[in-house]
Amino acid sequence: MSQPATTLGAGSSVGIVETRYLDLPEPVRLDCGRDLHPVRVAYETYGALSPRRDNVILVCHALSGDAHAAGLSRSPSGESTRDGFGAEGHGKGLGWWDGMIGPGKAFDTDRYFVVSTNLLGGCRGTTGPSSIDPATGRPYGPDFPVITVADMVRTQRAFLDVLGIERLAAVAGGSLGGMQALEWAVLFPGQVDAVIPIASTHALQPQGVAWNAIARDSIMRDPAWQGGRYYGTGQAPDAGMGVARMVGHVTYLSAPALSDKFGRRLQDSDEIRYTITEPEFEVESYLRHQADSFVRRFDANTYLYTSRALTYFDLARQHGGGSLERALGGVAARTLLIAFSSDWLYPPSASQEIEQALRALGKPVELQVIEAPYGHDCFLLEEARQTPIIRRFLAQPA
Amino acid sequence: MSQPATTLGAGSSVGIVETRYLDLPEPVRLDCGRDLHPVRVAYETYGALSPRRDNVILVCHALSGDAHAAGLSRSPSGESTRDGFGAEGHGKGLGWWDGMIGPGKAFDTDRYFVVSTNLLGGCRGTTGPSSIDPATGRPYGPDFPVITVADMVRTQRAFLDVLGIERLAAVAGGSLGGMQALEWAVLFPGQVDAVIPIASTHALQPQGVAWNAIARDSIMRDPAWQGGRYYGTGQAPDAGMGVARMVGHVTYLSAPALSDKFGRRLQDSDEIRYTITEPEFEVESYLRHQADSFVRRFDANTYLYTSRALTYFDLARQHGGGSLERALGGVAARTLLIAFSSDWLYPPSASQEIEQALRALGKPVELQVIEAPYGHDCFLLEEARQTPIIRRFLAQPA
Repeated sequence: MSQPATTLGAGSSVGIVETRYLDLPEPVRLDCGRDLHPVRVAYETYGALSPRRDNVILVCHALSGDAHAAGLSRSPSGESTRDGFGAEGHGKGLGWWDGMIGPGKAFDTDRYFVVSTNLLGGCRGTTGPSSIDPATGRPYGPDFPVITVADMVRTQRAFLDVLGIERLAAVAGGSLGGMQALEWAVLFPGQVDAVIPIASTHALQPQGVAWNAIARDSIMRDPAWQGGRYYGTGQAPDAGMGVARMVGHVTYLSAPALSDKFGRRLQDSDEIRYTITEPEFEVESYLRHQADSFVRRFDANTYLYTSRALTYFDLARQHGGGSLERALGGVAARTLLIAFSSDWLYPPSASQEIEQALRALGKPVELQVIEAPYGHDCFLLEEARQTPIIRRFLAQPA
Repeated sequence: MSQPATTLGAGSSVGIVETRYLDLPEPVRLDCGRDLHPVRVAYETYGALSPRRDNVILVCHALSGDAHAAGLSRSPSGESTRDGFGAEGHGKGLGWWDGMIGPGKAFDTDRYFVVSTNLLGGCRGTTGPSSIDPATGRPYGPDFPVITVADMVRTQRAFLDVLGIERLAAVAGGSLGGMQALEWAVLFPGQVDAVIPIASTHALQPQGVAWNAIARDSIMRDPAWQGGRYYGTGQAPDAGMGVARMVGHVTYLSAPALSDKFGRRLQDSDEIRYTITEPEFEVESYLRHQADSFVRRFDANTYLYTSRALTYFDLARQHGGGSLERALGGVAARTLLIAFSSDWLYPPSASQEIEQALRALGKPVELQVIEAPYGHDCFLLEEARQTPIIRRFLAQPA
């Protein structure tokens, strides 16, 4: 499955890994009523499956991630799939949660078999809008069905069925990944022992809905989007998706983090150059760089579909007739919620609401709010502080 | 100058007004080193100039405003120039600060002669990028010089010279308007008795620089922008400027305000419709409406130039060699700073820094932080709570 890489810290890495692919035998029934077939799932695994198949942890990625969560990719794409600040100083080809997954790490591969899949609708190996529509022989584009977080989770369920894995010791993820973890606890209560939603929510707050709407509009207003049928035209809505990425990027960080990192430093000199078109402040140049890197590795339609899924996600509406407590009534998993004090996109209050609902139901729940300055990106950056919390939680008896 | 309008509350309105225009006799020397000529200034006045010409208050508008600050426009454009939430429920044709300017109001036209100009670079009557460049006979577009807040203030100074007004009893404004007020206090210390910067700053914080960069990039990445030479082509970067406006709009509000107003309510029904392209949540529909209204009344190049000016604005860099205290060393005006607790774009901390610097210099300064939930837009919305503060401040002896 993996081999130690001598270039990495001894005993701390899962080594060199390779993304693999699996075709689901059956169609996936979607919330919108359509059946999707065929569905291919890109995945990686780290550690060894126990004979009793009871040591499986599923990690779920966020909007811009992929299946490559840990270790060094055999064929590095050259662009990390980490979000935001996390992208910098992060080794080329390293998985987006490499600091969290490996021997002795939060998700300890000496003990657990960690599985990571690219989500349904993705553009990194799992079936999504850029995949071939069997009905036409061309990429789906806007004909791809509108998917939900529950659809992503059902796809993971079907994928694990093929691997012969019935139960999960845990499902964990940050942001949209945390939504998937929560959805697992609700949809498959008998099949997951613990969930760890990090920097996440039961329903995106209206301001987050607004940011996502702006990001999607920016893509769709780009004429190169062509109604979503840009594949093979030699054009793609890079301009619009670049703006979408810049918006996202600023919302993933805190204002103090931007101040600490860039201040109002000018890019090239001590004096302003009186330019409209060129970046003048360091932060302006940084944002453009983030946009340019992102559009090289990501599909705009996947951005649209995934952004839509995470704004639709609303446990109370989907499962509780408007009541979060009712939605969580069937949860059997232990829950560890982690939130970050400076995360204004997925604020700690959302995790507190989940905690209160579960507590009112008498279910085992723990909330840790970590004081950290980097905003939403903390779920990628504050690996050292999350590690002991997660290790202790996983070590608790069920 | 104005006449009472029977349709408005008796005694509370300046009545029906008309924007007028004045051509400056001399070129305006700009910070970038260029001279700009001709320069036309659009303006309105409310109240009567005293025989000693000592009752003049200049009000300065923010990014998307214009000279029509109070009263009912004789030829309403149909689109209010108020920002954000303030646009709603605001009478058609009413000035953007109508609640603040008039008989018995904060800026009391029974006592003061209130002057409002469209800023340099504007698109509502004052010379800007959409004006004709005398060198070519065509609109300036990207050949318009890159202007600063100081250039805006020098233009106001030259305009007031023509009116025969030497001293100002006060300069007041919110946001970018507050920057102009501060710049007045620094550039013309002997000519202004009091300044009232509201929801403003001495230098935009890095996150604000980022938002503005994203807004400008969104416009410039729109192919219809055509390098700024879109006039007369039948196209304009409406798509990009719409996104810019949506970004701005969300930053002008607070997350709680968006939650209170829209929550996660769906637009058309109780059920999601599985749509990528159509607005689904009320907040999504609202943002598109804001974008569409804005692009009908505003010039994209003016947005670029004004946004650039407000990111460049930095009193410490411009006037103090990096020290705010040194920059403010020559200020002679009394200063009233008003900030709003929920304003995360121009947070109260910026006003506190100005207050501390002025206090350290032994200069008369007062800071009022108003607890209010609407974010940056409070400077337009919280008129009732600003009024007694401003009236009391203006009534104090110099």
